[in-house]
Amino acid sequence: MPRYALQIEYNGAPFHGWQRQKTLASVQGAIEDALAKLEPRTHNIAAAGRTDKGVHALGQVAHCDMERDWTPFRLSEAVNYHLKPAPVAIVNCVPVPDTFHARFSAQERQYFFRILCRRAPATHQKGLVWQIKNKLDIATMQEAANRLLGEHDFTTFRSTICQSLSPIKTMSRLDITQVETLQGTEVHFDVRARSFLHNQVRSFVGTLERVGSGQMTPDDVTAALEARDRAACGPVCPPHGLYLAGVSYPEMPFS
Amino acid sequence: MPRYALQIEYNGAPFHGWQRQKTLASVQGAIEDALAKLEPRTHNIAAAGRTDKGVHALGQVAHCDMERDWTPFRLSEAVNYHLKPAPVAIVNCVPVPDTFHARFSAQERQYFFRILCRRAPATHQKGLVWQIKNKLDIATMQEAANRLLGEHDFTTFRSTICQSLSPIKTMSRLDITQVETLQGTEVHFDVRARSFLHNQVRSFVGTLERVGSGQMTPDDVTAALEARDRAACGPVCPPHGLYLAGVSYPEMPFS
Repeated sequence: MPRYALQIEYNGAPFHGWQRQKTLASVQGAIEDALAKLEPRTHNIAAAGRTDKGVHALGQVAHCDMERDWTPFRLSEAVNYHLKPAPVAIVNCVPVPDTFHARFSAQERQYFFRILCRRAPATHQKGLVWQIKNKLDIATMQEAANRLLGEHDFTTFRSTICQSLSPIKTMSRLDITQVETLQGTEVHFDVRARSFLHNQVRSFVGTLERVGSGQMTPDDVTAALEARDRAACGPVCPPHGLYLAGVSYPEMPFS
Repeated sequence: MPRYALQIEYNGAPFHGWQRQKTLASVQGAIEDALAKLEPRTHNIAAAGRTDKGVHALGQVAHCDMERDWTPFRLSEAVNYHLKPAPVAIVNCVPVPDTFHARFSAQERQYFFRILCRRAPATHQKGLVWQIKNKLDIATMQEAANRLLGEHDFTTFRSTICQSLSPIKTMSRLDITQVETLQGTEVHFDVRARSFLHNQVRSFVGTLERVGSGQMTPDDVTAALEARDRAACGPVCPPHGLYLAGVSYPEMPFS
């Protein structure tokens, strides 16, 4: 069976997360249903990141096994046709060897988070950003973020329902930048690691927002990390500013 | 009565245009209804540009006359509160002299248009861009756009229901740029003039897209302009890529 890697973009708003569920709408379910229109049977696709309810993707990666030898262009066009009108799109599709596994071959996950800082309610960006009303002190946030880089026990920044075997992860990047847009000041987070704990990025962003607002210091973040205690975490921020931006593999399937 | 200039952002999708209508939702109606919550009476606000059904704004300008002496901050916060959940926001509010008129004092209107060039359906940007599947030849489009700069009889690019007294207008800017975004290649139009004919920007963009796709040449655009004949215009493009981006005044009310 030929295997294809799919690069997937979606708006998470109407979905109860990536993972297929019995009765609730999921991104995985939408794509598997579209595949079943092409080859009628049960499909079971694997993805690099099982995004939570309401979380978006710019570059989720999944793989699927097909019976027919599809040209990648035809396959992505056909899946996109059957996905309509759901806000999910296959933006890239390439044949990969059987040894490629979207989840287990992944070397790094990249998450992107958008905060919009302004008082007036968001209009065009509603649901695509986490809006807060005050400005943030980016330099101090970055100083605090640097305390989280590298290998640590991230128990503090881990959901209580996290199924990961170990709380130890290695953050390879945590960059915070301020961007002026036509609709106001945005703060962007670029967070990368081989893998993440459940709710880790949203726990980071919620905590770092407290730093940027002057409610916590970088030393408080170090103390929270060292406490290895979920109660030491700042508030977990909402999902609708979070995007799975990309996934890296030893041999990149997409150009 | 103190007068206030309002800078307004909105998503045009749920509205039948700016202008108040008896039974259909309009942006003007939404704002006037919000003002009536603050000072119960009939409000009649004037705007710089009466945007069509589905057209967005980043920097529409209107003015309102109030009975009470509102601090601008309180007024914009209160209007935004009553506008919820409509995708309309007052992003700036300043007191202006009685001689200021949002429509008649305006010196220049700036329109912004977004085309998204990619095959996969838009997800996050759905309704915020005009999507086409092919790439566009920007240099040739700009060459054609330059033929439309300056003072001309724009009968070709004018809706048949346009109420303007004269078809003669002066285009002060028509810049086309290609921008690479996380979600694909976008083509942006920056179009400026003291005033516009009805459907003029959408007639320009629809015609210039034909040039970028190789269906028309810059000389065809010159011929279309000189024909002064609506039938010579390319297809009028859809409204959902169009934004009223800003309005200039002899003395700018907003910082």
